[in-house]
Order: sequence, then structure tokens, then C-alpha cells
Amino acid sequence: MSIWGVLIGRRLANEEAQGRKMTVAEGVAAMGLDGLSSSAYGPEAALTILIPLGGAGLHVITPIMAAILVLLTLLFVSYWQTIEAYPSNGGSYTVASENLGANAGLLAASALMIDYVLNVAVGISAGIGALTSAIPHLHPYTLELCLAVLALITIANLRGTMEAGVLFSVPTYLFIASFGGLLIFGLARALLTGGSPAAVVAAPPLPRASESITLWLLLRAFASGCTAMTGVEAVSNGISAFREPTVRRGHMTLATIVVILGFLLGVIAYLAHAYRIGAMDQTQPGYQSVLSQLAGAIVGRGTIYFIAIGCVLAVVCLSANTSFVDFPRLCRLVARDSYLPHAFATPGRRLVYSAGILWLAVTAALLLIAFGGITDRLIPLFAVGAFTAFTLSQLGMAVHWQRQPRNRLRLLINGAGALGTGAALCVILSAKFIEGAWITVVVIPCVLTLLKLIKRHYNLIDRQLHADGALDLHAIKPPLALIPIVEWNRLTEKAVRYALSIAPEVIAIHVTRLEGPDAEEHNGRLRRQWRNFVERPARQASLSAPQLMLSPSPYRSFVGHLLRRIGEIEARSSGRPILVVIPELIKEHWWDHLLFTRRAHLLREALLRHGGPDLAVVIVPWAREAPHPEKIIEDEEPEAATEATVAGTTAVRRDPAPA
Amino acid sequence: MSIWGVLIGRRLANEEAQGRKMTVAEGVAAMGLDGLSSSAYGPEAALTILIPLGGAGLHVITPIMAAILVLLTLLFVSYWQTIEAYPSNGGSYTVASENLGANAGLLAASALMIDYVLNVAVGISAGIGALTSAIPHLHPYTLELCLAVLALITIANLRGTMEAGVLFSVPTYLFIASFGGLLIFGLARALLTGGSPAAVVAAPPLPRASESITLWLLLRAFASGCTAMTGVEAVSNGISAFREPTVRRGHMTLATIVVILGFLLGVIAYLAHAYRIGAMDQTQPGYQSVLSQLAGAIVGRGTIYFIAIGCVLAVVCLSANTSFVDFPRLCRLVARDSYLPHAFATPGRRLVYSAGILWLAVTAALLLIAFGGITDRLIPLFAVGAFTAFTLSQLGMAVHWQRQPRNRLRLLINGAGALGTGAALCVILSAKFIEGAWITVVVIPCVLTLLKLIKRHYNLIDRQLHADGALDLHAIKPPLALIPIVEWNRLTEKAVRYALSIAPEVIAIHVTRLEGPDAEEHNGRLRRQWRNFVERPARQASLSAPQLMLSPSPYRSFVGHLLRRIGEIEARSSGRPILVVIPELIKEHWWDHLLFTRRAHLLREALLRHGGPDLAVVIVPWAREAPHPEKIIEDEEPEAATEATVAGTTAVRRDPAPA
Repeated sequence: MSIWGVLIGRRLANEEAQGRKMTVAEGVAAMGLDGLSSSAYGPEAALTILIPLGGAGLHVITPIMAAILVLLTLLFVSYWQTIEAYPSNGGSYTVASENLGANAGLLAASALMIDYVLNVAVGISAGIGALTSAIPHLHPYTLELCLAVLALITIANLRGTMEAGVLFSVPTYLFIASFGGLLIFGLARALLTGGSPAAVVAAPPLPRASESITLWLLLRAFASGCTAMTGVEAVSNGISAFREPTVRRGHMTLATIVVILGFLLGVIAYLAHAYRIGAMDQTQPGYQSVLSQLAGAIVGRGTIYFIAIGCVLAVVCLSANTSFVDFPRLCRLVARDSYLPHAFATPGRRLVYSAGILWLAVTAALLLIAFGGITDRLIPLFAVGAFTAFTLSQLGMAVHWQRQPRNRLRLLINGAGALGTGAALCVILSAKFIEGAWITVVVIPCVLTLLKLIKRHYNLIDRQLHADGALDLHAIKPPLALIPIVEWNRLTEKAVRYALSIAPEVIAIHVTRLEGPDAEEHNGRLRRQWRNFVERPARQASLSAPQLMLSPSPYRSFVGHLLRRIGEIEARSSGRPILVVIPELIKEHWWDHLLFTRRAHLLREALLRHGGPDLAVVIVPWAREAPHPEKIIEDEEPEAATEATVAGTTAVRRDPAPA
Repeated sequence: MSIWGVLIGRRLANEEAQGRKMTVAEGVAAMGLDGLSSSAYGPEAALTILIPLGGAGLHVITPIMAAILVLLTLLFVSYWQTIEAYPSNGGSYTVASENLGANAGLLAASALMIDYVLNVAVGISAGIGALTSAIPHLHPYTLELCLAVLALITIANLRGTMEAGVLFSVPTYLFIASFGGLLIFGLARALLTGGSPAAVVAAPPLPRASESITLWLLLRAFASGCTAMTGVEAVSNGISAFREPTVRRGHMTLATIVVILGFLLGVIAYLAHAYRIGAMDQTQPGYQSVLSQLAGAIVGRGTIYFIAIGCVLAVVCLSANTSFVDFPRLCRLVARDSYLPHAFATPGRRLVYSAGILWLAVTAALLLIAFGGITDRLIPLFAVGAFTAFTLSQLGMAVHWQRQPRNRLRLLINGAGALGTGAALCVILSAKFIEGAWITVVVIPCVLTLLKLIKRHYNLIDRQLHADGALDLHAIKPPLALIPIVEWNRLTEKAVRYALSIAPEVIAIHVTRLEGPDAEEHNGRLRRQWRNFVERPARQASLSAPQLMLSPSPYRSFVGHLLRRIGEIEARSSGRPILVVIPELIKEHWWDHLLFTRRAHLLREALLRHGGPDLAVVIVPWAREAPHPEKIIEDEEPEAATEATVAGTTAVRRDPAPA
């Protein structure tokens, strides 16, 4: 088994696809990581905006979080409806395409793609950032560690969704159990003490207010808090990854994720208020995250604290995995519509869409390398994509319900969702535009244009290749075979034999690159050999004797010279198929590539590229060793019993599909 | 014109070879740089060994240098004879091979090859070392500067020997003029003052003697001084690079180089004694080279001093160029005998042996990179190769003369040369063995073994390919054409048309990778199209109708699956030629490579590699745009009037070469 085989696993048959599919528990881990990990930065982002309010900020965080939870509920109901309406794959791309037109769909797809790439880079660099601040002497290896984690996640995903689900369910559930338990404990204590619990380790005092409450400030805090909702769309995008019944499992997964997320967000906001915990300036020494202060206040700096905070960091880092589940699925849908290269829609050996996974890994790696593994500045860029997709998806669903009668309530829900997410998008865009959201605004149309260019190119080729007429056999003419030869040997012999079996007329071309007496002797010998070894037996077998053409090349150019000669012959032969028969010594070992010139290879590529419409290339291989057909198929399973069906003149079968 | 075209120059015709060849003046620059630049380090190397003797060392430098000059004279006479006896190419490889056997020749070739690579790396790093000690803030860029100089020298040599000669003649003659003039001036002053001239800038006082004179010390000083002779063999190796009359020009070039070198060495030794200048410890602060002290003593630290010292540095740095002239020539000779890949014997577009130049550049670059641009430690390694080659060459010439009558004097000269160089080799090996010469002793047999393995492989293939029998047309059977198809389009149509024109029986194979209702519909459509568009017209044209075979692949494997199917058909068809006709969309732009799968390409490579002895591949190209045959030949000149001569049944020509 090759190294690749060990890393990725054996090739899977189509029939095994069902066994590869996910249960709810696996779905929550594979698709929920992104959404759940948002709880680690969403509340903190909102509180950061509220820092200038001092203690007054704590009074508004609860209503802001309530608004966010309302929006989350709207999104939940709305995506519940989407999963029902689009049980195969109901991502924003599909919903927007079908209801708002191709451009809206592509806009959603471009926005989401950018978001997924950003999510990978930011997630991994945040996780590694936390690790290196805990173990400072790892700091010089930030980029290497980021790329190592990226490689691990990539390999896990190339192995397949199920393995990835199993692999990532451990940290996900550990996070839910430890951090959720800690919050429940805190909540119980707060309720028991009437809302004013005593902190085990008191949080640093809040700064004095430097600003007063304005609507703009509240809107900005809301916009920042909205990052807590990114990743909720994941489930609707990947319904087909679930086992049957897919819709029910999708609903359960979505509900589980949203309930846990909502609980985490709500309790964090409530406890921040109860324990009087605000955000701190990350650039100042002594910085502590909100979650760290909260955990310290509830249980102190003991073992439980470290387990819970460790799980938070692991989940943030691994949230990158959600992109690896969703990005390839999105790419597959887009590629099926020919907006991306078709390779993105071809399942690989492990039934996942390897091209999408690799592409995501490469772009994220480039982003990590470009920023040296520190991609914090990219965070403002990456709620824009998600909310663009949310809004388009909600709008699409609203249009969907409007077209159907008796769906007023559903229309209302998705309409409200569209309004809410649209408003949030506007707030996010205006609040973060200068900080970096403008980059997303610039890049999305570029990606969109690229997708449309790809589609145009495929369309062009489809039109050019399209044939709905019958085979034209009137113009068929007897072919002419040309053989470039170097000397008389077993390669040449085999090529001449094949040429005589496929064409009534054969011309061998020998390009002489030598000059002087050596060349004369060489050419003379070749002519004698040709007379004795080729012309005589051909005449004896009543075949037209192959010609030998000697053509000196003054520039030692072989390929260009031959191309010109063949072009001349082609011009004289008026539309006859020209078959250039190239004898080729098969290079079986790596050293063969060093010892033999690439001339035959260059010749065939040049002929195919520049040979004109009547030319085809016949490669007659000559292997020095017996072939090993098992090599190419060594990592495939013994084939299932699938009899080839022959349809044609000899064995006509009925068409199973009606005309 | 491409970038490559601008850098390397236009392609040259064979007829232009004569104009590319060198005169004596160019030969001295191109082949003498290495030898002449040796004067910069030979005397210094000898004096360094004599440091422990203090002032007494100056009394022995003159006899040591006299011994070296005697050896140089022996080498000169001996190579003069070699050039006469081997007027085409009389390098150590040829002389040793012809007179002492293939192994001796290969030993000489291996030793020289290693020496050439070392010379490039050491020469460039020495020159850049001098530059960075003059301009210290260039020091961090040592490696980059080394590689840049290497790239420049490589490009100059790829352009051709003549250009390289012109380019390098300026620093060579500037060096001879400035440094030679300075030495003549010093010599005149010394003679006029009766051997005790006053120094303009006095050299630092000599250290006190810490050891007394021993034979071993003298031998070591002699061995170190012998490095001054490296590079003398260059001319004999490259006689064919001269214009007619080559032997006379070769003799003149050799004489010029040896006379100038001998003069420089003798005068340096004499003046070192006259001005009481010794070598200084290079690791101590205040270090000055012998030549620098000498120039200071003769003319002081003025403009002339800086010009002369600058020329010395330039010449040392560019002495690497001699390797670029000789290494490819040596490789060509070795490759002609099939001890190296044949690419080394193929002249490139500029009539130089590009493979050898590039290979030398790559190995030297690797050496520079491995040592970070500081290759001083390699200096002890690199007289071993030269003296091994000298000795083998002299021995070979001695055997050569012994076989001919009436050549006693010549036998005597070359015999004495062999003794002298052999003795010098022994001294060098024993004196430098621990310092690094052992590496050369280890590497030479490795290179030699590699050369012999390459030869063995070529021999094996020659035996396997050898054919001296006639074409066997008894077993010829009608071919069977197989066409892997995806759908009915113009590609498929063209492929079927070509298949029908070359084979009486055609089978199209469609690998279905889809499953379920989609696949049924797709297959049904394909069957209908096949009936209407292929079978019907074929029957109307009285051809056997091509079959359509549908073959589902459960593992989504295309190539492996098809290979198995074709293998089954091949097994049933008992030795008929199998022609697999592959319709291939020509990828005209880089983006085509991204948009289309490499399936057709992978298929043809796999078929050629694993398809078995009866299989040939027919590639039917389908270009979306008109072909541009001018692209492949754009940088070639309009062809000279060279009519293709057709020899065969229709136009039999007399053989110019007798049978």
C-alpha cells in the first residue's frame, strides 16, 4: 500500500456510501463545531464594543444578547423550513439560485467560499495563538504549527466525513460537557444567591465609563455579537451527508446545535452581568478573555478551569473543520452547474470531494503563510460572507413560499429572517467597513466573475463539441502512415509492422542530424537495411512497400524539422487521415528518464498540438520488461460482480429507460 | 523571441560551427584562466607551508619553485606531444582509454569531473570572499552573490564558446597586463639594485623560525605549490574548439599559457625572496596575501596596486569558467562512449553541449548552497583529481610512444612526466589526506562505478533492441480498435471515423460511473444515439458496425477499470493488434489544464505502460482553435535549402557510401 493509501485509507465503492453517512451525534460534531465555537468569541466581541460604557455596558449586554437570540431563533426556524423544502441540499447557493436567479446564487456561493477559507485560517491561527501564549517557546514555530494542524485536518477530511466526525466529536462533546457544566453550575449559584453570586476569583474591576450609550454603539455591539451565529447554515448545506431519514436527522442536528448555542450565549450574557465581567483590551498586559474571567469567577483557577479553557481553545482551533465539511459540498454543487472545474464534482477514492478539500487547504495555507500564521486582522472580514449568504437564503425562501399558496406563516417567518439578517448585514458592513470588511466587498465580485467566466468557457466548449448529427462516412479516405525512425531496430520493426496493418501507404522519415562522412555511412546503411528488411518482405507479402525518406536538419532540431516535413506531406495528401506512428521505448524506471531523451514524448505532444485537423498520433510502445497491469490497480478492491453489457449489432438489449 | 532566446541567443546552424570556433587569443582567455589564476594561490600555498621556517623559508622557496617549473616544463612538452598525437581531442580520458584501457580512462574522467565541479565552487566563492572582505556589508549576501556569478557564467557559456571567450578575454588580458607589468617593474628594480630592492610599503616582518628544514616539509611545500599547475591540461582537452589549423592553434595557446604562467610563478618566487615576503596566517587579523604584500612593496598602495589586485580577484573568480569550457567537452566524450546519458553528447541550439554546462552549474550550485557560499575547506580536495588525470595521461602517452618505433625521446619525456606527476600525486595525497583529500579518494570510485553502470544499462538496451532480421509480416493480423467514450459529441465522432478507417472491427467502451435513474437515462440515450448516429451510417457505408459496450465501475475508477476491460478483450483476441483510439481535447491554454480532467492523458500513459505487447494507442486530437505550427519553430531560422531525399520504391538513389 502506498503512503497515500495509509494516510487516506482504501478506495471505497459506491455501495459503501450509505455506511459513510452521518448520524445526529456525528453531525453535531462535524457541522456544529463552527457554530458552537462561535460562543467563545461572539459575546466577547459584543462586550468589547461596550468597553467605553464601563459598568453601564453590563446593563445593555443582556438586551443585546436577547436580540441576537431572537435572530438565532428566526434563523433556526427558517433553516428548519429550508431543510424541509430542500431535502437534498438546501444551502444558500441552491435556495438563492432557484428562487432569486443564478446571480444571487453565485453571490451567495462566492460569499460563503470566502468565509470558509477565512474561517479555516482564522480558526487555526487563533487556536495556535492560544497554545503559543501558554507555551511561549513554541512561538517561533507559529506558522509551522498552523500548517501542521491544517495538514492534519486536511488528511482527516480526505479520509472521509465519517472518520472526521468521529475524530472531532471527542473535543466537541468534551467542550459541551465541561464548559456547559461549568456554566450550569454558575447559573445555579447565581440563581440561588438571588443574582449576585460571590466570585471565587474576582474579575478585574470594570473601567470607568468614557462614553454614554448611543444607538450606534448598541448597533455596533449587536453587529459584533452576530459573529456568534456564523456556522448555523452548515446543516442545511449538508443534508445529503446524513443517513436516512436525512430530513429528520438534519432537523435534530440543527435543533441540537441551536439549542446548545443559544443556551451558551444566553448563560454567558447573564453570568457576565451577574459576576460584573466585562471585556478587556486585548492589547494591554494582563488581558483575560471573558470566558476565562467567567470560569475563574465560577470555579477558581483549579483543574476544572484548565480543562474547560483547554476545551474552548481546542474547539476554536478545530472549528476550521466545519469549513472542510461544507466547502467541498458547496463547490460540488457549483461545479455541477459548471461554474467551477468539474473535478470539484468528482468524488475521490474515499467518496469525499477531494478537489474541494485540497483547494481549501491550499488557499488557507497560502493565507496562513502570507500572514505568518497570525491572521487576527482577518476576523472583521469574515462575518460579511456568512450574513450575505443568510440574507440571500432567507430572501430566497420568502420568494419560495410566496409562489406557493397557503404558506403565509412560513413566508412571514422567512421574510422576518431576511429583514433581520439583512439589517444585521448592513450594520456589520458599516461598522466594520474600514477595519477590513471592504476587502470582502472587493473580493466577492472577483470570485463571482471568475465563476461566471468558468461557466462561459464550459458553455463555449459544449457548443463547439456538441454533435447531434450522424457519423459522416462519405468523406472517409484511406489513411497515410508516417513513421519517424532513428535506426533499424526492434522498435522500428514493430512500428513498421503496425503501420502496415493500419494504412495502405507508409512513409518512414529519418532526420539526419549528422553531417560529413559519418552521416553518409549511416544513411547508406539505413537505405540498405530498408531495402532488404522492409521493402523486400512487404513486396513478398503483396503489400505496397513503405518508402524511406531521409531529411537532413541543419539546425539539429528534430521536432520542429519533423513537424515541417509532416506538414508538407499533409498539405499534399488533401484531407487523408495522417497517422504518425511513433515507436516509443517505455520508460520503466526513474533512471530511464535520465538515460533516454524525451524526444518521442516531445514529438507526440507537438504533433497533437500543432499537427492540424487530419493528423492523429499512433504510439507503438516497446517495453523491455513484461507489463505489470496490477500496479495501476493495486490499491483497488477485487471487483464486484459487474458484467459488462454489450449493446450493438451483436447483442442488442432493451433500453431500460423509456425514450 | 522568448526569454530563453534573449538569454542564450538564436539557434545556430551546423554550418555556423566553424565561425563559432576559437582563435589563439580567445583560447588563452577561455582555456587559460584556470591555469593563469593558479599563480595567485600556488606560490602562496607553498609559502604557507614554509611559515614555520621563518626567514629560512625564503631560501628554499626558489628551489621549490624551480622544481615546480621543471615539472611544468615537463607537462608542457608532454601535452605538446599529446596535442600532436591526438589532434581531435587529447584529454586525459581519451589518452588513458586508448593506451591504458577503459578503466584507466574512466578513472581519469571521474577525477577530472570532480575537479571541475570543485574548481567552479571554490573559484567563485574565493572571488566573492575577496569582494565581501573589501565591502563588508555585502557579507550577508555571500551565497546569493555566488549563485548570481554562477548564473552569469552559466548563461555566458550556454551562449557558446566564442561569446564566452570574448567575455572572459577582457579580465584575463587586463590581469596579464597589469599584474605582469607590475612584476616586470619589480623585477627590473630588483635586478638594478643587485637583488636587494627597497620596498615602497614594507611587508610585515617574517616570524622567527619555530622548526628546522626537513625533507617532509619541503615535499609538502612542493605539493602545495603544485596547485599552481592545475588547469594546464585544459588545452589538450579542447583542441576541436579551435579554428583550423587546430593543432597549430592548440600548440600556440598551450605555449602562451605555460610561458606566462611560468614567468609569473618564477618572478613571484624570486621577488618574494628579494623583498623578504612570506605567507601570513589567514586566520589572524591583519592578514595579507603574498600577492598583496608584493604589489605593495613594488608600487605602494596606489591606483596601480588596486587595479592589479582587482584583476587578480576577478581572474580567480572567473577561473571557474575554464571548468565550463572543459567539463561539457569531457562529458561529451564520455557520453559518446555511452558512459553518460546521450543528452551530454547532443549539441544544443548554440552548438555547445548544454547538458554538460547545466549539469556542472547544478552540481556547483548545490555545493555552494551546501557550504553557504564558503567552500574554502574544499581547496585541499581539488589538486588530487588534476594530478590523477595528469599521471594517467602521461602514462598513457608513454605507452603510446612505446608501441611506436623510433620514439625513444618522446617516451622518455612522457615517462619522466608520469614519474614527476605521479610522485607529486603521492606527495599531495599523503600531505592532504587527512585535510580532505580522502573525500576525493572516496568519491572518485563512486563516480567511476556510476559511469560503468550507465554503460551497462545502455549495452543491455542495445542488445534488447538489436534487430538484424527482416520485417516479419507472416503473423500480421487485422487490428481491433477500441474507443473509450464519454458521450456522443464531435470528439467521439472523429474518433469513431478514424477507428473505422484503420480497423475492420471497432468496439466503443463507455465506463458508467453514475448509478441509479440518472445512469439509466444516460445509458439509454447513449444507446439510442449509437444506433442512429453510428450503426446505421456504418451499415449504409457497408462497414461492420461498431459495437457499444457499457461497463459500470463501482469504484469510480476510470483508468484501472478500462485497463481491466481492455485486458479482457486483448486476452480473447489472440495476438491481434489492439488499437485504443483515445479522443483527446487539446489543451491550448493554461486554464484548460485546470478546467479539464487529466483523464485522457492518464489513460494513455497507463495503457502504454501496462497495456501489454499487442496494444498501441491512437490519439485523435480535437483542437478548438486553428493550429499554430509556427509556435514550435518560432525561434528557428528560415531553413537552408535542404531537399529531402526520398529513397524507396519510387525514388531509388545510389548509395554514396560503399557497402
